[in-house]
Amino acid sequence: KTNFKIAVLPGDGIGPEVVGESIKILEAIAEAFHYKFEFKYGLMGAEAIYKTGNPLPDETLQICKESDAVLFGAIGDPSFDNNPDAKVRPEQGLLKLRKELGLFANIRPLKTYSSLIEKSPLKKEIIEGTDIQIFRELVSGIYFGEKFTDDEAGYAYDICKYNRDEISPIVHMAFQEAQKRRKKLTLIDKANVLDTSRLWRKVCKEIATEYPEVELDFMFVDNAAMQLILNPKQFDVIVTENMFGDIISDEASVIGGSIGLLPSASIGNGNALFEPIHGSYPQAKGKGIANPIASILSTAMMLDYLKLDQAAEKLRQSVEHAIENKYVTVDLNAEQPYSTGEVGSFIADFI
Amino acid sequence: KTNFKIAVLPGDGIGPEVVGESIKILEAIAEAFHYKFEFKYGLMGAEAIYKTGNPLPDETLQICKESDAVLFGAIGDPSFDNNPDAKVRPEQGLLKLRKELGLFANIRPLKTYSSLIEKSPLKKEIIEGTDIQIFRELVSGIYFGEKFTDDEAGYAYDICKYNRDEISPIVHMAFQEAQKRRKKLTLIDKANVLDTSRLWRKVCKEIATEYPEVELDFMFVDNAAMQLILNPKQFDVIVTENMFGDIISDEASVIGGSIGLLPSASIGNGNALFEPIHGSYPQAKGKGIANPIASILSTAMMLDYLKLDQAAEKLRQSVEHAIENKYVTVDLNAEQPYSTGEVGSFIADFI
Ligand SMILES: CC(C)[C@H](C(=O)O)[C@@H](O)C(=O)O
Ligand SMILES: CC(C)[C@H](C(=O)O)[C@@H](O)C(=O)O
Repeated sequence: KTNFKIAVLPGDGIGPEVVGESIKILEAIAEAFHYKFEFKYGLMGAEAIYKTGNPLPDETLQICKESDAVLFGAIGDPSFDNNPDAKVRPEQGLLKLRKELGLFANIRPLKTYSSLIEKSPLKKEIIEGTDIQIFRELVSGIYFGEKFTDDEAGYAYDICKYNRDEISPIVHMAFQEAQKRRKKLTLIDKANVLDTSRLWRKVCKEIATEYPEVELDFMFVDNAAMQLILNPKQFDVIVTENMFGDIISDEASVIGGSIGLLPSASIGNGNALFEPIHGSYPQAKGKGIANPIASILSTAMMLDYLKLDQAAEKLRQSVEHAIENKYVTVDLNAEQPYSTGEVGSFIADFI
Repeated sequence: KTNFKIAVLPGDGIGPEVVGESIKILEAIAEAFHYKFEFKYGLMGAEAIYKTGNPLPDETLQICKESDAVLFGAIGDPSFDNNPDAKVRPEQGLLKLRKELGLFANIRPLKTYSSLIEKSPLKKEIIEGTDIQIFRELVSGIYFGEKFTDDEAGYAYDICKYNRDEISPIVHMAFQEAQKRRKKLTLIDKANVLDTSRLWRKVCKEIATEYPEVELDFMFVDNAAMQLILNPKQFDVIVTENMFGDIISDEASVIGGSIGLLPSASIGNGNALFEPIHGSYPQAKGKGIANPIASILSTAMMLDYLKLDQAAEKLRQSVEHAIENKYVTVDLNAEQPYSTGEVGSFIADFI
């Protein structure tokens, strides 16, 4: 297969800028490797609310379902965050999209770049050599459980619910990944307090018998939040539920020194979405200072997923080349910063 | 008042050892300041399960209710953690005690000690001067919401529920503390996803009008998990719900370089419990290597609470004296470590 349909959802804040660089790069790859990418754009998030009243218009969903993969920028807008009474919110678009596409596994690889290691708030000896792969469950748990607010009585609740079928697929995926790597899988949970965590532990233990070479261990989420900073090298593959995954993977993103570098893939049955870890960063919008590398490396994960291995490899090399030559944005080089577009073009030219 | 009834719950693992040092110190304080502390011991946790089948025997609860304050060690035992089917667990004792005593606010002060700053996994320039006070709601939320497991159908749920009356008291407490400090309060929540978080935001906004000098801001928990590491100095007082507080406060505990130093107070209406942040650390049990300072500084918080200001001051000075003179356990000085008992005695002698 050499022709691919790519849905492009630029989203809010710096989303359009960084996704724009990914498109630039896919065009360079199409030329170099003789592929064809057909891009279809869709609205999502605050942008979509302003234009259509709906954070995920049906048309966008349709485009995504008909594509081989989805490239997504970022979501979120402060005017909604500061209004607890808003009935429609940008995030609902992303959550609905995840659910509709069945994207049950959010995968975040974490590595340190030796040329950037000094950027980290953590000491070099703590982080050097860290190589973690986080699997976060993405379409269940407290994110999607029933929610309720009774304004008059003054109470609210959110239900965290899991069943075996929501836990098994991602646990299998994580075990398979661990098997290809250093053969260690850590489940992060709060099994000393939560029933859902005890179910996760149980399911993991059962599935572990199918992967005898992989060592499975359990860690409470509060302890994990410490261990990630005290000694990140102890981790190989991590698997965890939706909310803990949100917190832990963002925390882990500081290790490498720039969240502007970190990609993610969200995988389901027959669908996949690729997005940078960083948010919409509204303060930087339109300034040309956003780091496009997280989006570009998410594009590399997309190429992996489409089985375009050579192109993915070439793209990653080009990114490393840019980083080594300090052809980077202001977050990584304050003295001589390049703009979002310059970094993207440099990487595209190298391809 | 010079006579005080203190309930003492040594608990599991290293709990008895570190609490033993706190008692030693209270005895020194009683002598130096002519107070009288009457200690009543109670069982709680795995210890209590082994001896009585109940993680919080009625007798223990009674002792606590009749005391001016409770000194607690630690809880937890790996043999329960690894058994998802255990019906009785040590942690239930602590959770029930918190609920029964109405200890709605867990307060954790975080500071860096200049003589220990090199111990931190974080760079000195990131953490130097950090001074944060975390208020964690302790008797509601997903910890105490309805839980359910259906083994046959293979699902489980946990309900996170909050009402205004569970949010207001701790928010007031946090505002009052902020007013005495740098006048900045940060609510950590996930208001872009959870109904309960939006209720927290609403209640905080309303209460803010009573504290016009304090600046209130909101931060999503995933972002907070990053910001605590990237730039901890931006925080003054933090307030948050139970589960986020568990994760965030443990994460924050790595900043100073040793969790063995960090105390906490849990305050309710007419009751209060003081405990180190660290857990039961079963691997260190009985070896005389546990750092007693977290328990001793928790005792200082107890003296504050009992309004024995001079004694509290003297105790904190003595602890700093021990740290400056490297009269510390192996976690803080691997070359020339002192035992748990030696450190306690040094501090007691200094008083
Ligand atoms: C925008 C928000 C709803 C989302 C989440 O919490 O899942 C984001 O933080 C993420 O991690 O992708
Ligand atoms: C032991 C456990 C139930 C407890 C909690 O999660 O509250 C502990 O981690 C704490 O923070 O005091």
